[in-house]
Amino acid sequence: MSSPRTVDEHRAVVAALLDPMPAEDVPVVHARGRVLAADVVAGVALPSFDNSAMDGYAVRAADCTDAPVELPVEADIPAGRTDVPPLRPGTAHRIMTGALVPPGADAVVPVEQTDGGLDRVRVSVAPAPGAHVRRAGEDVREGDVVLRAGTVLGAPQIGVAAAVGRETLPVRRRPRVLVLSTGSELVAPGRPLRPGQIYESNGPMLAAAVEDAGGCAELLRFVPDDVEQFLGRLRERVSDAPVDLLLTSGGVSAGAYEVVKDAFRERGVEFVKVAMQPGGPQGAGRVDELGGIGVVTLPGNPVSSHVSFEVFVRPALRSALGHPHPERPVVTATLGERWRSPAGRRQFRRGVLDASNGTVREVGGPASHLLGSLARAECLVVVPEDVTELSEGSAVETWLLDG
Amino acid sequence: MSSPRTVDEHRAVVAALLDPMPAEDVPVVHARGRVLAADVVAGVALPSFDNSAMDGYAVRAADCTDAPVELPVEADIPAGRTDVPPLRPGTAHRIMTGALVPPGADAVVPVEQTDGGLDRVRVSVAPAPGAHVRRAGEDVREGDVVLRAGTVLGAPQIGVAAAVGRETLPVRRRPRVLVLSTGSELVAPGRPLRPGQIYESNGPMLAAAVEDAGGCAELLRFVPDDVEQFLGRLRERVSDAPVDLLLTSGGVSAGAYEVVKDAFRERGVEFVKVAMQPGGPQGAGRVDELGGIGVVTLPGNPVSSHVSFEVFVRPALRSALGHPHPERPVVTATLGERWRSPAGRRQFRRGVLDASNGTVREVGGPASHLLGSLARAECLVVVPEDVTELSEGSAVETWLLDG
Repeated sequence: MSSPRTVDEHRAVVAALLDPMPAEDVPVVHARGRVLAADVVAGVALPSFDNSAMDGYAVRAADCTDAPVELPVEADIPAGRTDVPPLRPGTAHRIMTGALVPPGADAVVPVEQTDGGLDRVRVSVAPAPGAHVRRAGEDVREGDVVLRAGTVLGAPQIGVAAAVGRETLPVRRRPRVLVLSTGSELVAPGRPLRPGQIYESNGPMLAAAVEDAGGCAELLRFVPDDVEQFLGRLRERVSDAPVDLLLTSGGVSAGAYEVVKDAFRERGVEFVKVAMQPGGPQGAGRVDELGGIGVVTLPGNPVSSHVSFEVFVRPALRSALGHPHPERPVVTATLGERWRSPAGRRQFRRGVLDASNGTVREVGGPASHLLGSLARAECLVVVPEDVTELSEGSAVETWLLDG
Repeated sequence: MSSPRTVDEHRAVVAALLDPMPAEDVPVVHARGRVLAADVVAGVALPSFDNSAMDGYAVRAADCTDAPVELPVEADIPAGRTDVPPLRPGTAHRIMTGALVPPGADAVVPVEQTDGGLDRVRVSVAPAPGAHVRRAGEDVREGDVVLRAGTVLGAPQIGVAAAVGRETLPVRRRPRVLVLSTGSELVAPGRPLRPGQIYESNGPMLAAAVEDAGGCAELLRFVPDDVEQFLGRLRERVSDAPVDLLLTSGGVSAGAYEVVKDAFRERGVEFVKVAMQPGGPQGAGRVDELGGIGVVTLPGNPVSSHVSFEVFVRPALRSALGHPHPERPVVTATLGERWRSPAGRRQFRRGVLDASNGTVREVGGPASHLLGSLARAECLVVVPEDVTELSEGSAVETWLLDG
C-alpha cells in the first residue's frame, strides 16, 4: 500500500467536492441561523426622521431659557402621526416617545419636568437645544452597510434588517446532504436484536451533525447491500431532487462485502488510508453516474464516523456556506494525565474539560467503538503525527464541540 | 411613584409565569437540539455481543502460541451474520470487523498478520488471549444510564440513543410564545414609509430570539391599537391553540395611546419601573381573560426590547425547558475605556470583545434606539446599580451573546 494520505490532504480533497452555495432569498422572518450571501445596505436611515426620545413636549429651546415658563399646547403628536404641524414660536406640542419632532422644534422637555398640561404647559427646566431629540440617521445613514456578507443571522441582525425595511434577505442555500448507512448487520429501532446485529445509529447521528453544521440532511437508511440495487436506489433518489453531497458510513474497510467500496471504487471515488486515528479508512470523489455529486465515505465505527465528520465534512459544509468560522473553536488546554499515541498518525481523542483549571482528560478510551463515552465528550484533543508521548501538564490543541 | 423593582425581583416574577414544560415523545431522528426530560437507560449493552475489532481470523489463542501456524478455515463470518457456528479447537473462522466472535474463539488475528487464506490460513504472529475482541458491554452495560435528563441532544447523544435501540425520546415540549408588537407608527416591510412611521422590527427580532432560546414563536404583527379589538384578536388566537406565553413590545411607556397597558392594566398585568437601563418600563402577569396565560410586556425601543428579552425572558424560557445552562455564558473582561453609568440602575451595555487581550469596548452608545450597533454587539456588559464610574482596566461582568 502507498503511504497514507495526511489529514490536511484529505481535508482539501473533501472541501473541493462542495462548491460555494448559491444565494437564495428568504423572508426575513425565516432567516434565523442562515448566512448572509451579500451585504445589506440600508434603504432608509435609522431613525428615518428626527423623533422624540421621551414622552413630553416639543419646544424651541430659545422659548424656555427663562424657565419656568408657560406655553400654549397647540398639537398632540402620538407616535405614528404623519401629518405633524410645524411648531410656531412661543408654543409647545405634546409629543410621545418615537413621534416625529415637528419642524420648528429643537428640543423635547420630558413630561416629568412639566405640569403635564393639555391646553397650556408649564415648563420648569430649560432644555438644551437638541435635548431628547434623536436625529435622523444618527444610528444608521441611508446607504450604510448594516450587515456584511458572511454574517450569521441572529435576533439582532434580523431586527436591523427588518428596521431598514427588508422583506427578504439573500442567504446561502443550505447544502443538501444525503446520509446513508450500509451494513447487513444494521437493524431498525423497535425491532428485536439477534446476536450479530446492531441498531443503526450512524445515520441519525450524521444527519444531526449535518443539520448542526447548517446543512439540510436527508436520511436514507437500510439501503440494499447489493451493488446494483444500491446504485439503482441512489440514481433514483438523485434524479428526484438535487443533492449537494452524498455521505455514507460503513462499507469501506478491508473486509469483503463492502458495498460502498464495491459500488464507488470504479466510479470516481478514491479510497485511501488517512494518517489519523480513529478514522483511517476514508474515501472521497465525484460520481458521474450520480450527476457528478460529491461522495464522502466515512468509516462505520460510530466514533470514527463522528470524528471523520468533524475533521473533514463539517468544515467543508460551513466553508461552502460562507460561514465566517468554518472550524470548531480551538483552545489550548493542559493535559491532566499522561498519554501515549501512535507514531505517524494524527490522533483525535475525546475529552472533558475542567473549566476551573483548564485541564482536559480523556473520556472513555481511544477505541473507535465507544459511543457511550463519545456522548459525554465536550471536546476533541489533537495529538500530532510525530508525538508519541504526552506528559501530564502538556499543552494540547483542543476543539470545543459545542462552539 | 413607588421605588423601582430590582432586576432580580422582576426576573423572579417573569420566571414564575412559565411552568416547567411537560415531556413529549419525539422520534430520535427529530430530537436534535431538544432537552431530554428523563434519563435514557440502555435496553441493550454496547456492544451487545463480543465482536471483532478487525478484519481477520477468529481463533483460540492457545492454538497459535507456536506461530507461525496453519489452521483450516471452517466458516466465514461477515458483519450481520446471526447463525455463527462455534469454533472448533484447531480451526479458524474468517471474520469481518463488527461480526460476532464465534463461541470457542478468544482472539482475532488481523488479516495483515496472516496470508489471508480462504481454505487454510497461515497465522504468523501469536495473538494474546482477548486480542482484537470487543467485549459485550465494555462500552455500555444493559441498564446503564447513557443520557441524563437535562441533556441537550446533539449528534453524539442522538447516536447513542439510536445505538441502544430507542425509536423516540422524551423531551421537554418547546414553549409556545405568541409575539406581538403594537404601535400605530409601525409599517410592514415592502410598504413606503411616511415621515413619522417606522418599519416593524421588534416582532421578527423577538421571534428569532424565542427560537434561539428553544421556544416556538408565532408572530402576530400589526395588531389593532383599539383595546377591544386588540383583546378580541388575542382571545380568538388563544382559543384556537394553546399558548404558553404572550410577549409584547411597545405600548407600555408613560405616554397616552398605550394599548398594551390599557388592555392589561386591570386584567392581571403589573406595570412597573425596573431599576435598569435600557429597559426600565416592564410588565408581567397572568391574564385570566386569556386562559390565565403569562404575559410579559417589553418596552418598544429595539435595544430595550432585546436587552429585556435577554435579562428576563430567555432565562425563563430555558429554565422551563430544563436547560442545564439557562443563562448566557458569563466571563470577566477588562474594560478598554472609561465609562460613566447612572446611579441606582443596573446598566446593560452592548460591547465587542478583543479576544487577543480580553478587553471589551462599547459598540454604539448606551442609547436605546441604536439598533445598527446592537447588530454588531458580541456581548452585554453589566454595570451594577451602585457603580457610577468605571476606569479603564476595570474588571466587568460580560454576557456572551452567541454562547
